[in-house]
Formats: sequence, C-alpha cells, structure tokens
Amino acid sequence: MVAVAILAAGRGTRMKSDLPKVLHRLGSKTLVERVLQSCETSQPVRRLVIIGYGGEQVQASLAHYEGVEFVEQREQLGTGHAIQQLLSPLADYQGDILILNGDVPLLRPETLEKLVNTHRHFGNGATLLTAQLADPRGYGRVFCDGENYVQEIIEDRDCSAEQKQNRRINGGVYCFNWPKLAAILPHLTADNDQQEYYLTDVFSQLDQVMALDVEDEQEILGINDRQQLAIAYSILQDRIKTAWMKAGVTLIDPNSITIDDTVALEPDVIIEPQTHLRGNTKISRGSRIGPGSLIENSQIGEQVTVFYSVITDSSVATGTRVGPYTHLRGHVTVGESCRLGNFVELKKTTLGQGTNVAHLSYLGDATLGERVNIGAGTITANYDGVNKHQTKIGDRTKTGSNSVLVAPLTLGEDVTVAAGSIVTEDVEPDSLVIARSRQVVKKGWRLGH
Amino acid sequence: MVAVAILAAGRGTRMKSDLPKVLHRLGSKTLVERVLQSCETSQPVRRLVIIGYGGEQVQASLAHYEGVEFVEQREQLGTGHAIQQLLSPLADYQGDILILNGDVPLLRPETLEKLVNTHRHFGNGATLLTAQLADPRGYGRVFCDGENYVQEIIEDRDCSAEQKQNRRINGGVYCFNWPKLAAILPHLTADNDQQEYYLTDVFSQLDQVMALDVEDEQEILGINDRQQLAIAYSILQDRIKTAWMKAGVTLIDPNSITIDDTVALEPDVIIEPQTHLRGNTKISRGSRIGPGSLIENSQIGEQVTVFYSVITDSSVATGTRVGPYTHLRGHVTVGESCRLGNFVELKKTTLGQGTNVAHLSYLGDATLGERVNIGAGTITANYDGVNKHQTKIGDRTKTGSNSVLVAPLTLGEDVTVAAGSIVTEDVEPDSLVIARSRQVVKKGWRLGH
Amino acid sequence: MVAVAILAAGRGTRMKSDLPKVLHRLGSKTLVERVLQSCETSQPVRRLVIIGYGGEQVQASLAHYEGVEFVEQREQLGTGHAIQQLLSPLADYQGDILILNGDVPLLRPETLEKLVNTHRHFGNGATLLTAQLADPRGYGRVFCDGENYVQEIIEDRDCSAEQKQNRRINGGVYCFNWPKLAAILPHLTADNDQQEYYLTDVFSQLDQVMALDVEDEQEILGINDRQQLAIAYSILQDRIKTAWMKAGVTLIDPNSITIDDTVALEPDVIIEPQTHLRGNTKISRGSRIGPGSLIENSQIGEQVTVFYSVITDSSVATGTRVGPYTHLRGHVTVGESCRLGNFVELKKTTLGQGTNVAHLSYLGDATLGERVNIGAGTITANYDGVNKHQTKIGDRTKTGSNSVLVAPLTLGEDVTVAAGSIVTEDVEPDSLVIARSRQVVKKGWRLGH
Repeated sequence: MVAVAILAAGRGTRMKSDLPKVLHRLGSKTLVERVLQSCETSQPVRRLVIIGYGGEQVQASLAHYEGVEFVEQREQLGTGHAIQQLLSPLADYQGDILILNGDVPLLRPETLEKLVNTHRHFGNGATLLTAQLADPRGYGRVFCDGENYVQEIIEDRDCSAEQKQNRRINGGVYCFNWPKLAAILPHLTADNDQQEYYLTDVFSQLDQVMALDVEDEQEILGINDRQQLAIAYSILQDRIKTAWMKAGVTLIDPNSITIDDTVALEPDVIIEPQTHLRGNTKISRGSRIGPGSLIENSQIGEQVTVFYSVITDSSVATGTRVGPYTHLRGHVTVGESCRLGNFVELKKTTLGQGTNVAHLSYLGDATLGERVNIGAGTITANYDGVNKHQTKIGDRTKTGSNSVLVAPLTLGEDVTVAAGSIVTEDVEPDSLVIARSRQVVKKGWRLGH
Repeated sequence: MVAVAILAAGRGTRMKSDLPKVLHRLGSKTLVERVLQSCETSQPVRRLVIIGYGGEQVQASLAHYEGVEFVEQREQLGTGHAIQQLLSPLADYQGDILILNGDVPLLRPETLEKLVNTHRHFGNGATLLTAQLADPRGYGRVFCDGENYVQEIIEDRDCSAEQKQNRRINGGVYCFNWPKLAAILPHLTADNDQQEYYLTDVFSQLDQVMALDVEDEQEILGINDRQQLAIAYSILQDRIKTAWMKAGVTLIDPNSITIDDTVALEPDVIIEPQTHLRGNTKISRGSRIGPGSLIENSQIGEQVTVFYSVITDSSVATGTRVGPYTHLRGHVTVGESCRLGNFVELKKTTLGQGTNVAHLSYLGDATLGERVNIGAGTITANYDGVNKHQTKIGDRTKTGSNSVLVAPLTLGEDVTVAAGSIVTEDVEPDSLVIARSRQVVKKGWRLGH
Repeated sequence: MVAVAILAAGRGTRMKSDLPKVLHRLGSKTLVERVLQSCETSQPVRRLVIIGYGGEQVQASLAHYEGVEFVEQREQLGTGHAIQQLLSPLADYQGDILILNGDVPLLRPETLEKLVNTHRHFGNGATLLTAQLADPRGYGRVFCDGENYVQEIIEDRDCSAEQKQNRRINGGVYCFNWPKLAAILPHLTADNDQQEYYLTDVFSQLDQVMALDVEDEQEILGINDRQQLAIAYSILQDRIKTAWMKAGVTLIDPNSITIDDTVALEPDVIIEPQTHLRGNTKISRGSRIGPGSLIENSQIGEQVTVFYSVITDSSVATGTRVGPYTHLRGHVTVGESCRLGNFVELKKTTLGQGTNVAHLSYLGDATLGERVNIGAGTITANYDGVNKHQTKIGDRTKTGSNSVLVAPLTLGEDVTVAAGSIVTEDVEPDSLVIARSRQVVKKGWRLGH
C-alpha cells in the first residue's frame, strides 16, 4: 500500500512567470500532471498534492483528476515543513508514502515501481532515488555502504575535496514508511542557514535508509527555469520519437518534429519535417504527414497525405489527399479518396467518398454526399449574423466557381450550380441553377482614359 | 573489369515495415538506388542485384535502371549463400567483383574506386573495406599484419579482452577476384550457431586478403531500423549542405533545411529556415527562398524571392516575387518581374512579364500576357465537370475582384473586367466587360429584427 | 579617448560571393554593422572603416551611421598596410585606437570595454585580445610572461612541437597607443613569404604589449566562409534565446526558432516551433506565437495568439486571434479581441475592437469600425487599375460571402450586405444592400448530357 505526496507549493521564481511553476506545460500536460501520471502504475491508495503559491490555480487545473486531495502549505518553509502538512490528513495511514516533486516531470513509472518494490523488499525505513552524475557539482552527495545503505548525505558546499569525488547525488525522490516518518516529522528543526525544515534531516533518525540509482539520470531533472523546461521537452520528445521509430515509423529530420505522448502511429507512417502531432491523434498505416503540418485530436486513415495543413478535432478517411494550405477547423469528417486543396477551410462539415473541395473554399455546417465537386471560391454562407444554418449537398452535385450557398439550403443530387451564382433556395435533383446577370461589353473602353 | 553484386534479399525485420528494407527512401532515392549510384564511377561491366523478400517490388523499383540483372535468392541462408546464387549467372565471368550491401547507402564513389584500385594494384584475392571505430563493440574485428594483409576476422563475442582493444572492424564491403571466389563458394558450410553460410569463411582459403580503411566511418553505416535511417539522412544532408555552403550558398539555420542531392544552387542564393528543395530543382544567383517553402522539380531564376510557398514542376523567371501562401501546382511558367501573392494557386498556366496574381486566385489551363493584373478572388472556371478548357488573357488586361472567367475564353488586350463579373464569352481588345446586377438598398433594415 | 578602425577592405574569396564579405548579413545586421555596434559602448571619438573591395557598396550600406569615416585601401597588402592608411586621417590624433576586423562580428561590447580599460590602466603600448583554444591548430600562438606581457607571437607553422602546446592564440583585436603605433607604422616591411605588411610586426618595437584573454572564445570567431557564417548565426541565436528564456519566455523547441536581437519579449510569452521574430518587433505578456509564423517590425499585444501566419509592419491588440494562414502585409492596425482567420490578407487597414475577418478575404486601404463581421470571400476592390481608394465600414456592419466592396466606398453602421453583392455606391446606416440576380432553376438538366 503506497500513498503519493507531490510537492507543488513553490512559486518557481526563476521561471519569471505569473503561473505557478508546476502549471507550466511540457507538451500535452502540465508538470504536475506528468508527476501524477508517473506514479499511476504504482496504484497509489491516496494522492496528495501539497499546494501553496497559486494553490487555487493548481487545484483547478487538476479538478478532472478524481480522488486527488489538496493539502495547503501556507508558508513555504522547506520540504520537511511541506511533508509535516500531511500529518493531519494521513493521521490514520499505515502504509508507505512516495514523495515526489511537482517540478520533476520525467520520472518513468517503472522507476517509481522499482523504488517502491525495493523499499518493500528490504523493509526500509526510507529509500531514496539517487543518480550517478558525470558532473555532480552543486548537488548533495549520497554516501552509502557496500549494500547501498545510506550513511550520510552531505551538501556540495560542505563536501571535502575527496568527498566531492563522489558522483552519487540525491534525486529528491523518496519512499518512506509513513508511520516511522510521521513519528519523526514533528521533531524537525530549522537550525540552518536557510532557516528551513529539511526532509533529509529525518534520515539520521530512521533505520535502514537505502539508495537506489536511477538508470537514466535525465529522469530526475528538475525544472527551475525556462531553459530546463526546454531541455526537459527535448528529452521527452527524444523518448517519444525513439519509441515510434523503433515501432516502424519513419521520421524525416526527427529533430524538427514534435509528437505528444498521447499520439498513436501505425507502422509505415512517414512524418515529414516541421510537423507537430498533438493530443488524441492517430495516424494509420502508410500515411505521409508534412512538411509543415499540425494535427491535433484527429484521426487520419491509411494512405492519407497531408502537407502544409492544419487539422483539428477531425477525421480523414483512407486515401484522401489534404493540402497545401487546408484547415480542418473542427468536427470535420472527410470520407475516403477525397481531395482537399489549396486555401480550403472546413468546419462542422461531412464529406462523402470521392468528394473534392480543391480551391479557395469555406464550408461550414455542411453535409456533402459522394463525388461532389465544389468549385473554386465556393462558400457556404452559414451565418446570417445571428444564427448558423445547415447546407446539404447531394451526391455528384457540382458548384461553379465563386458560388455562394446561402444556408439553410439543400441541393439535391446531380445538381449543377453555375459559376458566380448566389443560391438562396433549395434545388431539386438533376437541375441547373443559375443566378447571375448577362454579360455586357462596352467596346473601345480603356482604363484610365 | 569489375562486376557489382548488391545484397538486397533481406526483409529488414527491425524496420517493422511492409516494404522491403532496401526500398526505404533516403531523400530522393531508395537505399538500393543509392548503392547502385555509389558504384557508377567504377563502371561495372555487370550489375547484379540479389533479391529475395519482396523481390518483385525491388525489381519493379529498379526497372528504369538499364542493364541491371536480378538474381533470386529463394531462402535467406546468409551472405555466403547469397553470393553462391551468382555462380550460374557469372559462370563465364573472369574479372573482379565488388560485393555491396543494399542497406549501406552512404559509400562514396571514390571509396569504392579506391577499393577496386587497391585490389588490382596488389593483385589481391580479396580486399575488404574496414573502419577504425571509436566504439567497435558488437562488430567483428579485423586483425592484419603490418602491411594490411588480413590474418583473422574474429566476431565480437569470440574476442578476448585484449582482442576487443582492436578497433578495426569489418565494413562488409568486399572486392573479390571472382574466379578464385567462385572456386571456393561451393564448398562453404553452415557449421555455426546461426546455421548460415558466411561469406567471410572464404578468406582463410584465399591468398592475399587485404584490408583497406575507409577514411570516413560514416560511409559504412548500415540501415537496420528507422533510427539508423534518420541518422543516415542526417549524414547525407550534412554532406550536401556543407558542399553548398562551400560553393557560396548561404543557409540560415542549415539544420532546419533539407536539400536533395539532385538540386543545383548558384552562388549568393540564400535559403531561409525550414525550406526543402527536392528533385530536379535549380535556384539561380541572388534568389532568396523561404522560410517555410517547398520547391520540387522547378527552375527558379535570379533575384527571385519565395516565402511560405510550394512550387512543383514549374519555372519562375528573374525578379519575380512569390508568396506568402502561393502554390504553383505544376506546369506553371512565370515570367520576369511578376508578383504572385497570397492564397494564389496556379496550374498549367503561363504568365508573361510583369503580370500580377496577388490575392485569392485560382488560375488553371491559362495563358496570360504581359502586365496583366488579376484582381483578388479571380478564378478561371476551367472545368465544366467533364473537360478542362483554356483561358487566354491579353497584355495589360485587368480583371476585377471576385470575377470568374468561364473557359474556354479569350480576353483581348487592354480589357477591363468589372468586379464580380462572370465572363462567359470572348471579349475583344479595349473593352470593358461587366456582368452584374445593379445595387439595391433597403433602408431602415436591421439584422435580426 | 579611443578611436576605432575597422578592417573592411577584403573581398572574402571563400565566401564565393559578389558581395563584399563584410556586407553579408548575420540576422538583422551586416557583419560590419555588428562590429560597429560592438564598439558603441566604448564611445569612440572617431570611427574609421577601411574599405577596398566593393568599397562603394560598403560605404553606401553604412550611409545611415552618422560620423563614420571611410578610408580607402587601394591595394590589399596586409593588415599593417591597411592601418598605414590611417596615418593621414589620424595625423593629429593623440588617443588610443581600437583595431577591429569587419568579419569578426560576435565581440561583446563589454569585452571591448575591458580591453580598452586594461590598455589604459596599465598604460600599455598595445593590448591584444587572446583566447585559450581547446584546438589551437592553425592559429598564431601568443607567448607571455607571468604578468601577461607579450614576449613573442609565433605563427603556427613556425612553432616547435613544444610551442604548439601553447593554446593561447591571437584574436586579431587590438588596442594601440596611436602616437606610438603611428611612429612605427611607416617603417614596416613586407619581408615575408606573403609579401604583406603585418600589423603584428610592430609589437617588437613597442614597449608593454599585453595580452588579455577573452572569456568566451566564440567572440573572436572570424567569418571566412558560409559555414562560419552559419556557425556565427547559431552562436548569436543561442545568446539571444538563452537571454529570453532567462527572462521568462517559453521557447518550445528553441533550436527551430530565430529571434533578431532587435526584438523585445515580455514574460510568459510562449513561442512555438519554427517561428521567426524579426526587426523591431515586440510581443506582450501571455501571447502565444507559432508554430510556423514570421513576425517582422510589428507590435503584438497581450494574450494574442498567432499561428501559421505572417505579420509585417503592423500592430495587433490584446486578445486577438490570428491564423492560420493570415497575412498582415503592412500598416495594419488590429483592435482588441478581433479574429483574423484563414486565408485573409490585410494591407493598410484598421480594424476596431471585436471585428472579425475570418475567411478568404483581402482588405486593403480600409477602415473598419467595431464588431464588424466580414463574410468569407469579401474583397475590397481598392485598385481601379490606376489609383488606390479607401473603404470605410461602420460599426456592427456585416458583409455577406463573396461580396466586393468597390472603393472609394463608405458603408454606414449596422449595414448588411447580401452575399455575392458588388457594392459600388455608399450605403447609409441601418440598410440592407443587395446587388445580385434572382436564382433561376432549369430542371431535368444533367451535366455532360
């Protein structure tokens, strides 16, 4: 049985931000969400987030996480003080507790599982995550015996030259036996330069404190400023992109691509440079996306090509070609083998199989059948200034260039709309509709004369 | 006299792909095409590609390479087995043979020439390409005497600690005296853990096997998964971009740019970030391309600017400005000093000198004279739902905003088309053409009342 | 009192360019402008640019820098010869002189200040900037005594093996006591392999020549070819981006972003990938820019979002949303809480608060009031082929899809323009204006039959 406490009370001064530090985003999630996510597979029985600076904002941002408890730390007097706030909410709790930092977002779930399992296996009073750093300068060093039992933790500034050779540092991630920790916490003092209560002070009073090295030192990277935020994002992206390449996805110039960890890709997908895949997006086998595209919360079928386009909250079926300069703005469903082209925006629109909207069109609140051909410059006038209205277009219907379909409007199947027509009334199937003036020519006329 | 054999029978399981490994693309060419290309300057008298997995696909993909012979390896029983398949097609062949891997695409032609020349100069039975790796772990080590004659090749797993210090590894690229090799090949056995026939087993039976170190170890990078494919692409791009920078091209943020090895650039061209030049593209002196542009199979004249645009299969003459958000979709010829602007798509269209298509236009199957001014929103209705038709526009003609030119249509010189006109009949020179309704105003009218 | 001389006479053969080397651009400025800028805080009393190859071009490019003097070096016979050209213009000058290279653009002002101050403090005859390089190969080595007084400078090719261990190299940046230098200069000889007059030959005749190590060796990077130009740009970008991250700006994938050193950003701005900020641009707090955007010489208010758009010479007020595929082409003023959308181009246009131009529009030379709604495909016909004319649109007016506003034109407040209308005459407030033909339907009509 393990509970999780996340330290999320700090402002993060070096972020130079109005936003509490843990609410800065790393790709699809805030820092604190990532920390919550990292302990999910450890199946915590309680999840406590210790809030302080911007506490209401932090609480609101996690409102959709069920069962998360918020504990207020009114003053920020150090990590020991933060954990002291748990004494009351965890008064009756008898299990272990995992203590995480809300600004350490790259811990892998398996690392935390291993930490908890090691802690249990050895019946430790505390187990802490350590790392072997090539350059440990500035970090507190952890000194252990041959069996990884911690003998001492010494701050960098207090280390002798010899002690500084020790490259094992404290990652700030702990598993404690809560009843044992709870017994010590009330007796912490702030007898130090910073006048803070340090959680690490409890170690000397606990039996069996063990250190466990993290395999990948990047996991314990803490975010204190925007440069570290950028580095963490780069690490996260490398993990995601490496995994997809191993799974059979071709990334052309991977460094220029970003992929949220919520995205799913099938083998033989090809992602071209400068493409960004975000949110709940899935790309199916054989599709080629990019360059220069953004796809968010969308489902892309097989053998689809998308380039220089933006697709949000939409789906595109097999074999359709999109771009350049197409914008699917939301709630768009595109059928198979369609062609969406240049300077085309669709919103709340459904296209049947084989339908083309190839040039300079805006379609909103529309339902198109199969093999419809929308002429260049065709626009659905879906908004009368007060309400939005629907346009329905039957199979094989064809609109001429620069025509306007004034909704609400239904065009039947096999209708032809002449170029430049403003269509305001419903049209039966198999009709030609035309609404324009006859051409008049004034000869011998010259511009500016 | 040298023949070339390319091992291209493997599936490449780690690619996790439906495509045979050697058909994955590295920029403008497949892996196997790159290997074929790398041996071109060695002027091989025979070129044999050993196919197996997806053999028909591989064969079809190389159909346009004249004189390439395909040899089937039905089962994949090792490199020795693959080369055994050549015994019949090369029964009468008396020269040397260069054996290349279809998944080692970065060999420079000069490296292979040097390998062949060294082989001939010393009259070797076999000459193999080796490399000195900083980290040789996992590779078979090549042990030579002081004159580079190979004494032994030992697999990594069979090396003693001392032998592992040897950083010279086998690059898997060989030149053989074919008659000597052919005499040994039938006697190969598969007495090993993998039960495969190894080509390297022949070395002990050949006199004078020499090793030749490749200068740039990147040349022998083999592609086994998508990460290696990405690395190889990055190496290839570095080579190409370094060469162009040396030749007087400015690349602003080179890492964000990709340039196919089929592209030609003149000095004082400036390429802005996130620009991709592909296929048979040439950019002339003084032009500035990008950011955010894709140019494919197109000829760009001098002093042209292109930004945030896509140009395919087209030509743009001196001094023309393109973008942002222009798409030349194919078979477009743009004259000198034209201006192509925002949200403009051209297809199968010719523009004379000084002609402007600056906003929100689609022109297809059109021929425009000089100094034509195409108004915003002008569209050629080139498709009647069945056929495509031509539009011709004379010099100095001007179309008004949102006009539609219904093809087939000829507008003479010095014609003015009034805004919003749908032009369906030919117009003589020096005419004003107007096709629209008179404006009616209903006063005291308020939306939604 | 310090004067500055900048060596800017060389062609820069390895640039392979028609442009004199010092006129190549590094971001927002030419190389020689950057050098001029680097000595500004040293407050030079005279600034002399020694020109030769392309001298007129160099002179013209600096025409807007007041008080810069140009000195011609007709033949390029070495650095000593270049400085000899100053004997006449500085005949009466009694102060110090800072000698800079026009192709060394990354010197920090504080470095030059420190050089001048050190020179003065010690009363040196000359003080030179040196650097400790990890790899000093190819550079002249500077040998000093324990107090940094220079004893000897030896060219790389003349160094013994032991001397080559010295990693302190000459950065080519000097401060001289001008009268002392001027006394020696006439006696320089060209007795060397290159038959050039070397400025470094004067050191042996000066008392007290001191070396000062630059802290950051990147500062003395000289630009000799386009690769070094790309490297210098990357260094410059790193400096700029690091500074903004420290100041509270989030850069998502900083490597893909470029920011001119003339740009100002407020905290909590978020810059998405592949975004370029240029010229006199300011982005205010809480705005999110990118991906795929270019903003040049523009002011962006707070909480603005811009993506996949190009903004030049314009301003956008608080809370407005721009993109994708919007182009503000110049002299555009967008009010608060506007929405500019897909395939919209504005030029010389002002939008009041809450006004929307969301789809496929071109507005030029227009003034729009508040809460105006511009329908998709609406175009201002601002150009009659000869002159540009103004369009004025009152508050709350709404234009229908594909309407054309033929300027000069004034639409009052609360006007509604019906879809497809070509409006040619002014419209009073509270009116409906309509200019189109009635719809005609031909039933039983089928395309191609």
